[in-house]
Amino acid sequence: MELLEQRIKKDGIVKAGNVLKVDSFLNHQIDIKLMNEIGKEFKRIFSGSQITKILTIEASGIAIAAIVAQYFDVPVVFAKKSRSINLDGSVYSTKIESFTHKRVYDVIVSKKYLSADDRILIVDDFLANGCAVDGLIDLIEEAGAVLEGVGIIIEKGFQDGGKRLRERGIRVESLAIIDSMNDETGEIVFRH
Amino acid sequence: MELLEQRIKKDGIVKAGNVLKVDSFLNHQIDIKLMNEIGKEFKRIFSGSQITKILTIEASGIAIAAIVAQYFDVPVVFAKKSRSINLDGSVYSTKIESFTHKRVYDVIVSKKYLSADDRILIVDDFLANGCAVDGLIDLIEEAGAVLEGVGIIIEKGFQDGGKRLRERGIRVESLAIIDSMNDETGEIVFRH
Repeated sequence: MELLEQRIKKDGIVKAGNVLKVDSFLNHQIDIKLMNEIGKEFKRIFSGSQITKILTIEASGIAIAAIVAQYFDVPVVFAKKSRSINLDGSVYSTKIESFTHKRVYDVIVSKKYLSADDRILIVDDFLANGCAVDGLIDLIEEAGAVLEGVGIIIEKGFQDGGKRLRERGIRVESLAIIDSMNDETGEIVFRH
Repeated sequence: MELLEQRIKKDGIVKAGNVLKVDSFLNHQIDIKLMNEIGKEFKRIFSGSQITKILTIEASGIAIAAIVAQYFDVPVVFAKKSRSINLDGSVYSTKIESFTHKRVYDVIVSKKYLSADDRILIVDDFLANGCAVDGLIDLIEEAGAVLEGVGIIIEKGFQDGGKRLRERGIRVESLAIIDSMNDETGEIVFRH
């Protein structure tokens, strides 16, 4: 998505350790106009899918999911991170390792909001090693729902999450895929 | 807001300890159509204010803020909860006590995304004791920004947050104010 790549080049900041800071428009301050264009693009890409619900994980996926959901006219469900959960049978749960925060979260969705009738589009801001998406897929499988696809804003193509998910036969659509970044020059190379 | 009160009556569940569960449409699964109506209502209420940014706090405020921001045509900034922050001077920070989670969070906003030129509308899902809003106001004051008002979806009118904020001269607009709830009968009484 040209508009997105331009914005990443203009406002993204490459940091050591393959970190890309896009908090001026994507995950701390949020450019809602850009999110609208992203929503339209996901709707175009997934127009052949009968999606009933958008699933994401707190916190940075929520704004994106909410805006995207308007174009599909479906509800959003966001999985919650929890440190101490009461597994009373009312939730689907899994564990997700966060490399950014160097810890493992329990992640839950109420059984009331995912069912075998649902056809799910997962939406998130970043795809790197894919742990968050793996966890969301676990929840979808627990519910017996159908995964229609995964919509990602920025995929770090030099990490293996996208490759691994696609090899499992999952439809992963990333609006920008970065093949390499250089924190000394600031250069960002996109895959086309 | 009639549509919202009807929805709370229909789908809200009153639990012991003055807990109102609205996670079927507001803060776990999100009814985006309802959020759009809420966005329009806040725009109507605050149409006389020159708002430059919507401020909220992760996680449940984010979807609301994103949808509301469309009607004001401004960016969203969400304050981040943190357990260990590096106070290197790049962020505004405060502490917020969460009664729900029985702990104190450090809450931060990057100095890049709040400035003395900003006129802020705070948006959140619930107002009870007002601790979250107090914290967001701290951040706005640190930045020297102007607080135009606070837009709340559900105010627990039997707790003192709204009263206290209004007594400070802050414009608080709640789309539904609950005067009392009964977890045995399920009754919810709204203020009109």
